[in-house]
Amino acid sequence: MDDRVRRHAGILTDYCTDVSADDDVLIRAPTPAADLVEALYERIGDRGARPTTEWRHPRATRAYGRAIDPDDVRTADHRLAAMAETDVVILIKGAENDAAGSDVDPETRAALRRAKRPVLDERLETRWVITQYPTAADAQRADLPTRAWEEFVYDAVDRDWDAQRAFQERLVDVLEPAETVRIVSGDDTDLRLSVDGMGAFNDAGEDNMPGGEVATVPVVDSADGTITFDLPVVRGGREIRGARLTFEDGEVVDHAAERNEAALTALLDTDDGARRLGELGIGMNRDIDRFTNNLLFDEKMGDTVHVALGDAMAECVPDDRELNESAVHADLLVDTSEDSRIEVDGEVVQENGTFAFE
Amino acid sequence: MDDRVRRHAGILTDYCTDVSADDDVLIRAPTPAADLVEALYERIGDRGARPTTEWRHPRATRAYGRAIDPDDVRTADHRLAAMAETDVVILIKGAENDAAGSDVDPETRAALRRAKRPVLDERLETRWVITQYPTAADAQRADLPTRAWEEFVYDAVDRDWDAQRAFQERLVDVLEPAETVRIVSGDDTDLRLSVDGMGAFNDAGEDNMPGGEVATVPVVDSADGTITFDLPVVRGGREIRGARLTFEDGEVVDHAAERNEAALTALLDTDDGARRLGELGIGMNRDIDRFTNNLLFDEKMGDTVHVALGDAMAECVPDDRELNESAVHADLLVDTSEDSRIEVDGEVVQENGTFAFE
Repeated sequence: MDDRVRRHAGILTDYCTDVSADDDVLIRAPTPAADLVEALYERIGDRGARPTTEWRHPRATRAYGRAIDPDDVRTADHRLAAMAETDVVILIKGAENDAAGSDVDPETRAALRRAKRPVLDERLETRWVITQYPTAADAQRADLPTRAWEEFVYDAVDRDWDAQRAFQERLVDVLEPAETVRIVSGDDTDLRLSVDGMGAFNDAGEDNMPGGEVATVPVVDSADGTITFDLPVVRGGREIRGARLTFEDGEVVDHAAERNEAALTALLDTDDGARRLGELGIGMNRDIDRFTNNLLFDEKMGDTVHVALGDAMAECVPDDRELNESAVHADLLVDTSEDSRIEVDGEVVQENGTFAFE
Repeated sequence: MDDRVRRHAGILTDYCTDVSADDDVLIRAPTPAADLVEALYERIGDRGARPTTEWRHPRATRAYGRAIDPDDVRTADHRLAAMAETDVVILIKGAENDAAGSDVDPETRAALRRAKRPVLDERLETRWVITQYPTAADAQRADLPTRAWEEFVYDAVDRDWDAQRAFQERLVDVLEPAETVRIVSGDDTDLRLSVDGMGAFNDAGEDNMPGGEVATVPVVDSADGTITFDLPVVRGGREIRGARLTFEDGEVVDHAAERNEAALTALLDTDDGARRLGELGIGMNRDIDRFTNNLLFDEKMGDTVHVALGDAMAECVPDDRELNESAVHADLLVDTSEDSRIEVDGEVVQENGTFAFE
């Protein structure tokens, strides 16, 4: 077995979820991740815990999605019962074909998502982590040779996470007490937000492996200005490129895209919350140095900023503040490595990819 | 997809377990059975039920078995909770390497088996079926080319099960009221049993797919005579060949084997119940026409008789009769297709593989 797989397994069980003999562990994994599952079972055995693995099987899921009547979709009680007794969840991504489910009816897809909601809510009560096993199909999506994608994944994962957390904590220390944030990039982006009273979240790889971002939530009616996204985003199978949003009093009042503008319009029209921001994130994992069409990595890419339309990250919003709610949470990225700056309360915190504190 | 896989899936969901919209279905399947799982998801979707699949992953199970301290082994609450909410279980066999778990410590293996017992007891409360997906490794064990093994499996599975049940019911009608059974084969087998008051079980593919046997349970102190087994049996990784047992008052009083006699001795010494019979089975699936070193098939082979040492089939034993109990249930086979007869209450019921009623 590739030694990097063993190291990855160790990070997941030791650093991300701290598996102990008290734990029932649920792994969810696709066929190509067989080696990672094997390595995880060895670690979980070492730690005296109890694993089981749900087979993530996109061809089967697609066959089910095409066969089931959306009106018949219901929550699976056996999955819900298992999750309620689960202490640790390790979710492994890794496609054989990223388009495996692309011909399932959107109505059925939505019904299945709603039916899974109680299982998801139980999962969020566990110590969970989402990670990536490198496959050929995901390498193709990243426009990389398979071996290069493997190196990219393991470079992003196998790092000194304590040092990364300390690095990110310095930005948390700036954002926690901050009132305003301004993002300027080129001639097309100048967005002003209030984050007054909001918490800042240091994602150093506990929930996402790789981690590597600091996130907060804009005050719901505060966004003003224009933001142009440098990196494409895929929604409902369509790649939106060159998207541009103009905000007034927190709401999108104008939008455009160079490609698939209709998909952007549909996204904004999902519900009221979809026109407001639910997250401001700053990517700080510099081993992620290129866009790979994979949000688990892209949103942590060093020297990028992303905002998410839609559902807000609840952990950053105090109980007495309004929480933006939506059926969507769509991350959109700006490259801030050149001709860009991030200002906090009028002070430049990052300029052309370099933080003031480094 | 191979159309035989679709037909197999249909037999499992429709005939064996009668999946309906009320059902939460648990599949347990290994990697090679991916197509069968896909076909099952389509059928389960058609029927409005909810599937989940536990990945049977022998390499991972072996890694866990080698890493865990046997004293740390405990029942997995999440698996138990899932099983308690499960209505239908479809267990799929199919090895990539039949020896994948052969270097796990026997003590750990026994501890894992004991810890799984509550999950097994819950599973027996569901509508469950065990079946086979044909793989290259299992073909090798059967001493067949992979394509020939596939044909063999699908011939045994894809049959007219209602006709098979009716055929077997004729033997049930003979055995249910019977008092004595005598099995004679060549010069080496002449075994007399009482089945007085015991039930007869018609296995026409509900719990095992393929099915194809009629089974009953000998009265615990009734076996007398000698039985010589024509087909080898593998216990603890060792193949016992040419085994011969002599019974008096239901108990083995003499035993020998041409090969691996020590393994046969160890089997008999497991506990008191291991020296007595827990089953008499008559194989009636004539599409199973050769020994394949796979008990799911071998015990249903047409024109064979098997007796099992050890734990008795409870469904055949009335509550007021003694039930032989043991940690083992070891099936041993006699070929009755030539120079053989089965007598019930002194009447010949089968001679040289042909039943009197056919």
